[in-house]
Amino acid sequence: MNNKGTIVVFSDTLDKVLAAFNIATGAASMGMEVTLFFTFWGLNVVRKERSSVKGGNWMKRMMGLMNRGGAARLKLSKFNMLGLGTSMMKRLMEQSKLPDVKGMITMAKDLGVRIIACNTTMDLMGVQKDDLIPEVDTIAGVAKYVAEAKKSSMNLFI
Amino acid sequence: MNNKGTIVVFSDTLDKVLAAFNIATGAASMGMEVTLFFTFWGLNVVRKERSSVKGGNWMKRMMGLMNRGGAARLKLSKFNMLGLGTSMMKRLMEQSKLPDVKGMITMAKDLGVRIIACNTTMDLMGVQKDDLIPEVDTIAGVAKYVAEAKKSSMNLFI
Amino acid sequence: MNNKGTIVVFSDTLDKVLAAFNIATGAASMGMEVTLFFTFWGLNVVRKERSSVKGGNWMKRMMGLMNRGGAARLKLSKFNMLGLGTSMMKRLMEQSKLPDVKGMITMAKDLGVRIIACNTTMDLMGVQKDDLIPEVDTIAGVAKYVAEAKKSSMNLFI
Repeated sequence: MNNKGTIVVFSDTLDKVLAAFNIATGAASMGMEVTLFFTFWGLNVVRKERSSVKGGNWMKRMMGLMNRGGAARLKLSKFNMLGLGTSMMKRLMEQSKLPDVKGMITMAKDLGVRIIACNTTMDLMGVQKDDLIPEVDTIAGVAKYVAEAKKSSMNLFI
Repeated sequence: MNNKGTIVVFSDTLDKVLAAFNIATGAASMGMEVTLFFTFWGLNVVRKERSSVKGGNWMKRMMGLMNRGGAARLKLSKFNMLGLGTSMMKRLMEQSKLPDVKGMITMAKDLGVRIIACNTTMDLMGVQKDDLIPEVDTIAGVAKYVAEAKKSSMNLFI
Repeated sequence: MNNKGTIVVFSDTLDKVLAAFNIATGAASMGMEVTLFFTFWGLNVVRKERSSVKGGNWMKRMMGLMNRGGAARLKLSKFNMLGLGTSMMKRLMEQSKLPDVKGMITMAKDLGVRIIACNTTMDLMGVQKDDLIPEVDTIAGVAKYVAEAKKSSMNLFI
């Protein structure tokens, strides 16, 4: 088997995003070449915190308003409880000395994990290149994803 | 690595089903042999629009009533908002010249993607062969799925 | 391709957990070496039914209270309807002669499926070794998961 792993990050819930980064950084620290492909709701993870959708029609602006970017905003998929569960989880993570999503992004980059943002999603949601965090390496579509996935022994959809 | 990809489509939300078809058609257009295995809620994607569960006991009929088939019925997993978010997403897809799920099924078939419907789910939910769309190639169980997955370099569960 | 499969069980909904065990037991009965890695909400599947979080601070205890363990407690991700949908699904499973989750765990063990519990999740949620069912083979972290996944041709995240 080869030494590559590719993970589609489709979700933007705190729990799933943490799982994706845990596996990515774990694999990278063991010498694997890891690529994260952020698509659909997952694109929010690599959007700047204050980015808002300016261009496009009212639907893109409304979608952008509901669906705000920024790693600090992510919520649990369960027990969110108007933010209470999410903030409890964040405090438990601190107590367990686990980094938050921003810390995980930094760690991933330090370990050589490649971050791709899906251009089909960007077009669909009215997100521009300037709205993305600088940690994004490449903006690309499904052809790039498939090319990576074909070469990877570990493929996951999260 | 080989040239095969197998995707379990477990979900029936519009967003995840679109992701599955995007990857499947992208991979097939790049020459991969792709198999989609529709199971559990995902079976709804390959059920005819007007199919209703006629046989079976009241529980199968009630499950069939709540859990109606048809690619046009799929809803977003987030921001459905009584259908408003879903219809906004569909209009944004049209504007981005993205096909809808029915169009994706046609495109997938044209590119040689194989569609398998899970027989365990059919039995569980009281769905008959006649309730499935004609694009389904095979009705089979987990043994068939595993046989395909073992030969695939790209395995995903969506 | 090789003969190994590794599945991350991240979710604790009845439907997804059944899918994970169906694939695991199907693959194992066809001679594959299968490893299930229970992490995050999925850890609940391998927690004892009456286990409650005793140690830790109030947050760990509260998280433990909301997030109770036990294979019999799992609920559907859709149509739970205050438990009605879940119990209907369980009766449909009985009628189709499908085992419940406890039965699936036993069957998986009989077929040689390995069960790993994620130690990062245990620490985060305040779960002790004694809180886990005896069917758990190993308590380990992401490094163990990645080592297995690298050697597996079939990797899934459920």
